[in-house]
Amino acid sequence: MDRGATGEEVERVVAAAERLGLKAHPIPGAQRTAVGITGNKGAVTTAVFEALPGVLEVIRVSHPYKLVSREFHPEDTIVSVGGVPVGGTRIVVIAGPCAVESLEQTVTIAREVKARGADLLRGGAFKPRTSPYAFQGLGEEGLRILAAARDATGLPVVTEVLDTAHVELVAAYADCLQIGARNMQNFELLKKAGKTGKPVLLKRGMSATLEEFLLAAEYVLAEGNPNVVLCERGIRTFSDFTRNTLDLSVVPAVERLSHLPIIVDPSHGTGRREKVVPMSRASIAAGADGIAVEVHNNPAEALSDGPQALTPGMFSELMSQIRPIAMAVGRTA
Amino acid sequence: MDRGATGEEVERVVAAAERLGLKAHPIPGAQRTAVGITGNKGAVTTAVFEALPGVLEVIRVSHPYKLVSREFHPEDTIVSVGGVPVGGTRIVVIAGPCAVESLEQTVTIAREVKARGADLLRGGAFKPRTSPYAFQGLGEEGLRILAAARDATGLPVVTEVLDTAHVELVAAYADCLQIGARNMQNFELLKKAGKTGKPVLLKRGMSATLEEFLLAAEYVLAEGNPNVVLCERGIRTFSDFTRNTLDLSVVPAVERLSHLPIIVDPSHGTGRREKVVPMSRASIAAGADGIAVEVHNNPAEALSDGPQALTPGMFSELMSQIRPIAMAVGRTA
Amino acid sequence: MDRGATGEEVERVVAAAERLGLKAHPIPGAQRTAVGITGNKGAVTTAVFEALPGVLEVIRVSHPYKLVSREFHPEDTIVSVGGVPVGGTRIVVIAGPCAVESLEQTVTIAREVKARGADLLRGGAFKPRTSPYAFQGLGEEGLRILAAARDATGLPVVTEVLDTAHVELVAAYADCLQIGARNMQNFELLKKAGKTGKPVLLKRGMSATLEEFLLAAEYVLAEGNPNVVLCERGIRTFSDFTRNTLDLSVVPAVERLSHLPIIVDPSHGTGRREKVVPMSRASIAAGADGIAVEVHNNPAEALSDGPQALTPGMFSELMSQIRPIAMAVGRTA
Amino acid sequence: MDRGATGEEVERVVAAAERLGLKAHPIPGAQRTAVGITGNKGAVTTAVFEALPGVLEVIRVSHPYKLVSREFHPEDTIVSVGGVPVGGTRIVVIAGPCAVESLEQTVTIAREVKARGADLLRGGAFKPRTSPYAFQGLGEEGLRILAAARDATGLPVVTEVLDTAHVELVAAYADCLQIGARNMQNFELLKKAGKTGKPVLLKRGMSATLEEFLLAAEYVLAEGNPNVVLCERGIRTFSDFTRNTLDLSVVPAVERLSHLPIIVDPSHGTGRREKVVPMSRASIAAGADGIAVEVHNNPAEALSDGPQALTPGMFSELMSQIRPIAMAVGRTA
Repeated sequence: MDRGATGEEVERVVAAAERLGLKAHPIPGAQRTAVGITGNKGAVTTAVFEALPGVLEVIRVSHPYKLVSREFHPEDTIVSVGGVPVGGTRIVVIAGPCAVESLEQTVTIAREVKARGADLLRGGAFKPRTSPYAFQGLGEEGLRILAAARDATGLPVVTEVLDTAHVELVAAYADCLQIGARNMQNFELLKKAGKTGKPVLLKRGMSATLEEFLLAAEYVLAEGNPNVVLCERGIRTFSDFTRNTLDLSVVPAVERLSHLPIIVDPSHGTGRREKVVPMSRASIAAGADGIAVEVHNNPAEALSDGPQALTPGMFSELMSQIRPIAMAVGRTA
Repeated sequence: MDRGATGEEVERVVAAAERLGLKAHPIPGAQRTAVGITGNKGAVTTAVFEALPGVLEVIRVSHPYKLVSREFHPEDTIVSVGGVPVGGTRIVVIAGPCAVESLEQTVTIAREVKARGADLLRGGAFKPRTSPYAFQGLGEEGLRILAAARDATGLPVVTEVLDTAHVELVAAYADCLQIGARNMQNFELLKKAGKTGKPVLLKRGMSATLEEFLLAAEYVLAEGNPNVVLCERGIRTFSDFTRNTLDLSVVPAVERLSHLPIIVDPSHGTGRREKVVPMSRASIAAGADGIAVEVHNNPAEALSDGPQALTPGMFSELMSQIRPIAMAVGRTA
Repeated sequence: MDRGATGEEVERVVAAAERLGLKAHPIPGAQRTAVGITGNKGAVTTAVFEALPGVLEVIRVSHPYKLVSREFHPEDTIVSVGGVPVGGTRIVVIAGPCAVESLEQTVTIAREVKARGADLLRGGAFKPRTSPYAFQGLGEEGLRILAAARDATGLPVVTEVLDTAHVELVAAYADCLQIGARNMQNFELLKKAGKTGKPVLLKRGMSATLEEFLLAAEYVLAEGNPNVVLCERGIRTFSDFTRNTLDLSVVPAVERLSHLPIIVDPSHGTGRREKVVPMSRASIAAGADGIAVEVHNNPAEALSDGPQALTPGMFSELMSQIRPIAMAVGRTA
Repeated sequence: MDRGATGEEVERVVAAAERLGLKAHPIPGAQRTAVGITGNKGAVTTAVFEALPGVLEVIRVSHPYKLVSREFHPEDTIVSVGGVPVGGTRIVVIAGPCAVESLEQTVTIAREVKARGADLLRGGAFKPRTSPYAFQGLGEEGLRILAAARDATGLPVVTEVLDTAHVELVAAYADCLQIGARNMQNFELLKKAGKTGKPVLLKRGMSATLEEFLLAAEYVLAEGNPNVVLCERGIRTFSDFTRNTLDLSVVPAVERLSHLPIIVDPSHGTGRREKVVPMSRASIAAGADGIAVEVHNNPAEALSDGPQALTPGMFSELMSQIRPIAMAVGRTA
C-alpha cells in the first residue's frame, strides 16, 4: 500500500480479495502496510488490485504457469520425435539447410549429416522473411521434399509452421512442428499446434522473458499436448558483434523451473558460422539436451542465411568437438 | 575484403556480382580492398557475397524497402479510417477499452470518449494474452458489440486481428484492422490483411528495428494496400520503471524515411496510467499524427490491463492537455 | 519461502530479521509461506535472507534511497546555477559546443546562443572519448576559455569533470560540475563532487535503471550537497536508428519519485541533428525542466560529435519551437 | 551520398578527405554515389564527413583499435599475474570473497580455494556499491589483509581499484589491478592503471559493445602496458531471470579479433549461485582462458553479494566439473 494509505483503503483491498475467493493478510509496517494474498489455485489478474486506491504495487510471488512447471511434474519429460528421444541422456543433433531449395540439395545434405551423426533433419518449407521480396520457401513442395529426404535417410523431420491455415498440412508431413521466434506469441498457432498432438519445437522469441517463454509452452500443454521441446536461439540486445545474443543461462534456468527439454540453436543465435562450433560446445556444457544447426552443401549459394551455415566438413568438426563435451557432462552424442 | 584477400578472391566477388546482373567496383586501399556493388533495382541478398572466401563483411548502403519509402513517394499519405483522415493536420485520438467486455460497457465508454473528442473507437474482441488462462476476448460477439457502439456514436472502429483465419470476419465488422506488436512479423497475417484493402494499424514489435517495422508495412503495401498507419507502442529494454520503453524518436525517424502516418500508444508504451498524459503530450510534440489510449469506465474491474486505463475524467484532462500542444506544433486536435 | 520450506526454516528467517533489529511477519498461504519484514529505517541488504535455506526470493517493497525521495521532501527543489534557477517555472536551455576548441570558437558560440535565448553555457574541457587516439580536450586551458566566455556573455558555465583528481580544478572555474553517463557510477567522483557543494548535473548512465540513477544522486546528497540536476541522455538498446534511445518516460517518473529537477539532452540522446528539434519539443511537453543541446558555429569541422551539433540558425529555430510548447504546459522559455 | 547529392557535393567530400591526407574514390551507382576513403593509418573521425551537405551516412570499414588487434599481433598474449600465466594452455581459476571482511575470513577462504585448486585470490578492498549506505569496503586495511592471505597461501592477488587516487596504493599490494564494469570507460583510471605496468583485469561494461571493450583495453596498451586480461561478466538486457545476461559469444569473438586473453565471471554474470557451475562449464567450453568466481565460507552472512557466492564445498564441485571440460577442449585446469 502507499505510505499514506488509509485503513479504509486497506479494507477495500481485503474485500476485493475475498470477492475473488482469496484470503488477504494485512501486515502493518513502520512506514506502510503490505497485504499478502493467498489461496489462488490458478493465475489471478493483478489488475483488480492495482486499480484500487492506495495500492502502490502488486508483486506476484508464485508462477503463473502450472503444466510446464517442475513443481507439478518433477521428472524430466522426454519427447519422442519420430522415435528419437529428446531430453534423455543422449544429446540430440538437429541439422539441415535453412531453407529447402530442391530435392537434390535436401537429400544430399540429409545424407551428409546423417553420415556424420545427426539425429533429426531440419529444413524450412515455409520461411518467415523480414522482406516481402525475399525467397519465401517452396511451401507444400518443400514438405514433400523433406518427406523424401526422410525416406532416403531415416531421419525424422522438423520443419516450421507459420500460419494456423497450414498446421494440418505441415503436421501431415513432419515429425515435429517448429514454431519460430517471431511466432512465439502467436497464440492461435500455439493452440492449433497443441491440438495436433505432434511434438512442437518452440523457439524463444527475440525479446521473450523466461516467464513468457514458459507460458507460450503452457499454451501447447493446455491443449493436452505434453510434447514440447524448448529452444534458445538468441535474444535481441544492444550487443552488435553477433546477430543475436545467445542467452545460455536460460538452459540451467529452464532445467530448474520446468520438466521440458531444452536445446540451443547457435546458428541463428550468433548468425556467424565461425561461432557455431564454440557455442555448440558451450551449449552442451551448460546442460542443453541438444543443438540445432544449419548445414548447407554450398553456403555461398544458399538462398537464405548462408553466412551462418556450416559445410559438411565443418559439421564433422562440430560433431567431433561436442562428443567429448557430452562425455564430460555424463552424456553421449 | 579481408586484409589478406588475394586478387583472385576479389575477382570472384566481382564475378558473383556480375552473375546477378550487378556491377562491382573494386577500391584498393592502403591495407585492404573494398568492393562497391551497384545496379540493384530491388533487394539483393548479402549472403551470396558473405559466403565467398576473402570477404570480411557485406555492408548494405541502400534501403531494402521501396513502397513505404519517402524516396519513392515524397508526399505524406493520409489514410481514411471510416471517413476520419489519419495523417493530415488534425491529430487523431483513438480511445476505448482494452477489451470489449459487454455491450453496455462498450457503448458507455464509446459515448464518454466521443463526447470528450475522440475520433475513433478502439477495443479488443480477440485478445492476445501471455497466459492461456487469461481472458481471451469475446470473439465475434465482441465484434458485434463494437459495431453496435459505432452505430450508437458514429465512431469508426479499430480492432485487433490475431489470426489469418479471422481476417475476413474482423474486416466485415471493423473500419481498421489492428495488427499487434506480437504479430508484427506474422507475415501471413500481414499479407492477408493487405489483401482486404482495409486500413491497417500496424504496431511496432517489442524488439523491432525501424527497418523491420517498415518492412512489415511493406508486406501490406506489396499486396496493393497503401492504407497503413504505423504505431509506436514501446520497445523492450532493461529499463524497468515502465512496462516498455516508449521510443518517441521513431516519430521523426519515420517521418523522414516514410510517407506513412505514425501514431503513438502511450498506454501500452508505459503501462502506467499516470504516465499516459505526459507521454501523450510528448508524442504530439514529437510530431505524431495521433495517439491511441485505453479508457475504461471502471478500471478497477477491467478484465485486462486495468492499471494503464484512464477513467473518462482523466481522458477529459488528456484532451484538454494535448490541444494546446497540437496548436503549438501547428495542428489541431 | 520455497514450497517445501520447513517450519524451522521459516523460524530461521524470523530470527535473522530479529538479529538485525527488524520485525518478521510470517504469512502462511495455501501452497507456501511468505514472510513480510518491516522496521528498517535505512536500506537493508537482502543477501542475509537470500542465503538462508528455504528462501525462494527476497522482494524489496520500499525504496533504498531517502534524501532524493519526494516522500521525504515533497516540494520541488530549485537548483541555482550561477544565479539561474533550474527546476522552476522557466524552462532552462543549456547550449554550447561539445568540446572547447579555442577561445574564439567558444566565445563566438557563447554569444550566438546567448543572443538567441540560452540560459547556461556548456562545453567540454575534459572529454571522455571511446578511443585513446581521439581528441581528449584542452584541459585547464579549456576551463580558462569557458571562464572567459562567461565573462564575455554573463552565461554561467556547465562543464564535465572526469576524475577525482580534477574536481577542485574544475570547481574553481565552473558554475556547475557535469558528471557524464560513463561516470554515473564512479562513486568516488560522486562523493568528491558532492563535497564541493557546487551544483552537479548528473547524466543517466547508458544502462542505468531509474533506481540506480536516483541512488547515484543520493551519493551527492549524502555529502550534504542538495544541488543536483538530473539529465536523461538516452539509454542503450537494440534500436539502431538513433545512437541511443531517449527514454522520455523517465521525466514523469522522476517527477513522481524525486524532488530534484530533470532536464533532457536530445543531442547525445539521438546522435542526429535532425532529431534534436522534435525531441526537444517532446522533452518539454513531457515535463522536463530544461534541455541541453550542442551548438557549433561550424559543425562540419567540429573536433567531436559534429553530426549532432546544431548551427546557430538551427538553434534559433529550436528556441522558436520550444517556446509555444513551454507555454502549452504552463511554463516559459 | 544522398540520392540527390550533386557532383559539387561529391567534390567537397573528396576535397575534405584530401585535406586530411586521405584518398577518396567516388563510385557512381544506379541511384546514388558512394565514396570510398582509404589511406588512414590511425583512426579518423567520421564527423568531418557526416557534417558535409549531401552525405547520407559514413560507414567505418576498418577497426579503430590497433595494439589490441590480432591483425597487428597474431600470437596469443600470455599475461603473467604474480607468476601465474593467464592465456596459455592451463585454465586459470580466480576465487575468493566478493568483499574482504576480516583477516580471518580472507585467510580462511584463501586456504580453502587454494586447497581445491584455485590459481589466484580475488577479494574487494574498495567496493563499488550502488547505494551510498552499503558497505564500501575496508580500503587499505583490506589490501593489507589480501597481502597477508597471499603470504599465507602463495596465491597472487587480484583486487579492484576504483579511483585514480588509489592506483599507486593498490598497485603496491596487488599482483593485478581489476577495473570493474562500472569503470570500463573511466578513461583516466585506465591510463593510470596502464602506467603502473601491472597486469590489469578489465571487466566489460554492462552496456559495452565489443568495440568499446577493446578500445578500453587499447587505453591501457597505449600506455605501454601489454598485460591486459579481458573479462566478460554479463551485459544488461531485458532478460530478468539472471542479474545480467552472460554473453559467452564474446569469447570466440575476442579470440578472433584480439591477442589478449579473456576470462569469464559467472558469479556476477548470473547473480545466482546455482547457475555458477553450469555457466563455468559453458565458459571453458566456449574457449575462455579462465573463470573468476566468488567463494565465501558463510554466504548467509556475507557483507555483499551473498546469493552468488559458492561455499567451499560447491567450489570443489565446480573444480571437479570444469576439469573434464578443460580436457575436452585440449586444456588443463
